[in-house]
Amino acid sequence: MLVRTRNPLNIGAAARAMSNFGAFDLRVVTPYEKAFREAVSAVGAAPLLANAQEFESVEDAVRDCSLVVGTTAIGNRELQHDLVSLETGGKKIRTKLAGGRVAILFGSEKTGLSNGDLSHCHWLMRIPTRAEHRSMNLAQSVAIVVYELSRGASNAMPRSKNTLSSAAADMETLNRINQALREALDLSGYIHRRSASSAEEKLRRMLLRFDLRAADAEVLLGMLRKMLWKLKT
Amino acid sequence: MLVRTRNPLNIGAAARAMSNFGAFDLRVVTPYEKAFREAVSAVGAAPLLANAQEFESVEDAVRDCSLVVGTTAIGNRELQHDLVSLETGGKKIRTKLAGGRVAILFGSEKTGLSNGDLSHCHWLMRIPTRAEHRSMNLAQSVAIVVYELSRGASNAMPRSKNTLSSAAADMETLNRINQALREALDLSGYIHRRSASSAEEKLRRMLLRFDLRAADAEVLLGMLRKMLWKLKT
Repeated sequence: MLVRTRNPLNIGAAARAMSNFGAFDLRVVTPYEKAFREAVSAVGAAPLLANAQEFESVEDAVRDCSLVVGTTAIGNRELQHDLVSLETGGKKIRTKLAGGRVAILFGSEKTGLSNGDLSHCHWLMRIPTRAEHRSMNLAQSVAIVVYELSRGASNAMPRSKNTLSSAAADMETLNRINQALREALDLSGYIHRRSASSAEEKLRRMLLRFDLRAADAEVLLGMLRKMLWKLKT
Repeated sequence: MLVRTRNPLNIGAAARAMSNFGAFDLRVVTPYEKAFREAVSAVGAAPLLANAQEFESVEDAVRDCSLVVGTTAIGNRELQHDLVSLETGGKKIRTKLAGGRVAILFGSEKTGLSNGDLSHCHWLMRIPTRAEHRSMNLAQSVAIVVYELSRGASNAMPRSKNTLSSAAADMETLNRINQALREALDLSGYIHRRSASSAEEKLRRMLLRFDLRAADAEVLLGMLRKMLWKLKT
């Protein structure tokens, strides 16, 4: 998933790399509009690019995903998230892919992913570039990530029988939980008005760290709604 | 080593990827001259590119190397050579690098490496792209190869600063959370009297599945207590 990409060549090159390694679902979030149009209409643009979906926000784009991973070149900005190497992250992602969609976010060429973008991520993944020259070309990052994910793809484990019960919660449900929780905390006076928006991001990050299963998420949501109902009476 | 590269952007992008992963010795063989000059003089060109050496032939370029590896997108043209996957080849190359220089050849964007080029290679290496879309962008190929070679070079992940805050929550805290949650659910009418004890077990199992960190557990407990306080008033 490309967030706020500016260079049409990068969008095209990222799409090509995805096609090389069998990742077909490209999503773009508020790209520089002209860049996106140019990339899609470029001669020889991959069919993949023609099917790319465009979204207005990261939140919309990841709605049907059960795992959202941010990529970063940086070592220690994001104290809020777990940061794993691409090799470790690749393994985790391959496992998750058996049970649902996984979104991998790539930020803009200049600024990477914002804190708002990152608040939708379960964890972050770093491509192990040299400390002295961390910043990678966007499309090359995409290429390396899809290459790493394709590793051992042919030995993919058959889907386990209990996929359903251990399936990860999707982002839609997490958003509902987040909303209910925030409302409950609001009514209880836990959240002060002036810090409301940062509280929302903090809550979302915490919920993502819980790594909720679908079934547990439903239970949690049910509990919160019941409490909410009581808080309102 | 880039052989007969035509696009200056590709030379620049390949140099950047090499720099990202600590491969500093770029050699170019009979590049399209204008492309090479343009790449070297591009604003922001890596120092690596300024130090690139230019050669008239592959033979000259590999003279001081003890292993020469060709890269190819193709499956079975080169019956003359052993063809290994990048993963296998990467291991062989890392071993060899301890004892001497290794050259990795990348052919031109259009035609790849010629049979003449290949005749200088000990063996060939294939990046495992999909059979239906084998042909990769040149600089992305370089990026993936240097990434693979850097694998395990060092456990270079910056040590996460948040080790402390990622400590697991202790059972004591979990029990407090469990208690607070149960009380809140009780007050809200979520838990029916007759199923209270099984509800407690279910809640505990669910909390354990959340795999809470110490810091998050404290936050969660604080939230629940606030809600509880409100529920009681």
